[in-house]
Amino acid sequence: MSDSKSGVTGERVQPGLVFAADLGGTHLRAATVDEKGKIHFRLKQSTPQAEKADEIVRALVLAVRACEDQSASAGYGISAISVVVPGTVNVEDGVIVKAPNVPCLDGFRLAAALEGELKRPAILENDANAAAVGEMWQGAGRGLSTIVCVTLGTGVGGGIILDGKLWRGVDGSAAEIGHMGVDPFGGVACTCGSRGCLEVYASATAIVRMTREARPRYPSSELHTSEHLTSEQIYHAGLDGDELALEVFRRMGVYLGIGLANLINIINPSMIVIGGGVVNGWKLFEKHMLQQVAERAFPLPARRVKIVKAECGDDAGLLGAARLAFAVEGRSV
Amino acid sequence: MSDSKSGVTGERVQPGLVFAADLGGTHLRAATVDEKGKIHFRLKQSTPQAEKADEIVRALVLAVRACEDQSASAGYGISAISVVVPGTVNVEDGVIVKAPNVPCLDGFRLAAALEGELKRPAILENDANAAAVGEMWQGAGRGLSTIVCVTLGTGVGGGIILDGKLWRGVDGSAAEIGHMGVDPFGGVACTCGSRGCLEVYASATAIVRMTREARPRYPSSELHTSEHLTSEQIYHAGLDGDELALEVFRRMGVYLGIGLANLINIINPSMIVIGGGVVNGWKLFEKHMLQQVAERAFPLPARRVKIVKAECGDDAGLLGAARLAFAVEGRSV
Repeated sequence: MSDSKSGVTGERVQPGLVFAADLGGTHLRAATVDEKGKIHFRLKQSTPQAEKADEIVRALVLAVRACEDQSASAGYGISAISVVVPGTVNVEDGVIVKAPNVPCLDGFRLAAALEGELKRPAILENDANAAAVGEMWQGAGRGLSTIVCVTLGTGVGGGIILDGKLWRGVDGSAAEIGHMGVDPFGGVACTCGSRGCLEVYASATAIVRMTREARPRYPSSELHTSEHLTSEQIYHAGLDGDELALEVFRRMGVYLGIGLANLINIINPSMIVIGGGVVNGWKLFEKHMLQQVAERAFPLPARRVKIVKAECGDDAGLLGAARLAFAVEGRSV
Repeated sequence: MSDSKSGVTGERVQPGLVFAADLGGTHLRAATVDEKGKIHFRLKQSTPQAEKADEIVRALVLAVRACEDQSASAGYGISAISVVVPGTVNVEDGVIVKAPNVPCLDGFRLAAALEGELKRPAILENDANAAAVGEMWQGAGRGLSTIVCVTLGTGVGGGIILDGKLWRGVDGSAAEIGHMGVDPFGGVACTCGSRGCLEVYASATAIVRMTREARPRYPSSELHTSEHLTSEQIYHAGLDGDELALEVFRRMGVYLGIGLANLINIINPSMIVIGGGVVNGWKLFEKHMLQQVAERAFPLPARRVKIVKAECGDDAGLLGAARLAFAVEGRSV
């Protein structure tokens, strides 16, 4: 293949990798990925706590250079740049519309800035959308074309793939599954301005909050001893049989199940993939989640849908970013 | 055009109409429709309270014959048959999977039966899906390609069109917007088996139920005088300033707004079209609905979406059925 290409262009074309980056509020993770989904090289660093977008661009350019040096020694070139961010993205224009955790990027034309520095095509995507693409390409959704991916992390993100295409909505803001009201009258305020969103019951942040709130009712819980609680700790307590932790994951499962039943009735997907750190608590919330789905979703789509754990872990977004870069020419995702 | 066609087939081809039928639990409405969306002839009759699917087939065949006689005299032929039903449809196989209001059709291959009798292509569609297509073709959604249609009738139906294509889901059961939980812990049971669905707060049936439930708290309401309540009566009472009616439509607007905010956050459409009989109460519920959307939906997609009344009235389903028949060759909807 590269020979025939070099025949056309007159240059030797190296086998193609893409540079994929997952730009989080805390960490910038990057990797070179080949067309089969293999990660060749990866790096992880702190996201610059930048006041100007230029610093983010510089960090990304340096990451590309580092990956490039490493790839070149193995005989590979980097043909495209793909960055996923935690926020609303105008994919067509390569603009970050709103990124609450990296606010210096609001309104910034990141794709054009990267193309200018790196002289290669660059694309952007929302991180939860990319995770859905990654799971369909290399994870739980392999071989399927209509899946919903729910990412339970610090917040709750979502990605919807319909007939093999990412559904972004008319403004790139679709699939905000974390901001579906699952207890609209329950009164828990969400950072989005609404109340009773899935995110306030099923995120890692929510697990910790619900544990703190319920502690007075569980005086013998082992979770009293810890001031700095994490969802991981709570999950481990649950595995040990701690009643407080079990109650929190029960509630979380109920709310998640209500949200999934809505998605099943509205979208009728082949699969719902659940990822993010909170999925570690699967054993503790699965039964409660599935019970709500059984009680609330229509029988036909409920029988159809497989509800499964994500398989790509932290790499879902990176892999999805890579897949989207490879697909740009064919516009197949 | 017809001349060039006749040159190929050797026959004179008449200008094409399609036969569209909207098979409800109570009425069978049918019409001949041309490619521009003009209804040429229409008829309405009671739906046979049939125990066998054959009786429904016979009623449809007779309706086609009646339309055909009328069309032939005007020089038109009927090129295809399109029937919409209140239930889950396997469009590809032309099978009615489940139609709670016309149970004799459950599992019936209606398209094949009609093709056998009428020697013309026949297609099926869910009625709320067809209404969405009708509104995009000839109604409020003209010129748009991504809309959600919510039909507030005896129940609450939905249709979702994404980038110009009806989204049916993997089993043809998507867009069950009426069965999104908008007060999952509120406890009102729904016929679907779940609790707190949009349908139990925003359908005509719900308007009547909520009025009956709230009557004891409004002793001076004019709605006490009537034993046989209808949503129409309640709407008129509201226009007269009746406090009970106003409270019922306020609640209905709140629940509807919660549901629409979910749809906006998940789908990010250009427009939400609201149809069905209950939309007559628009003036009474609009403000409350929009307030919930403003409080709960993300700002970007909430600014984008137009929330409007349907424009095709009772004909939305018929028109959508016709459009789908015309589109079958091109598979464009």
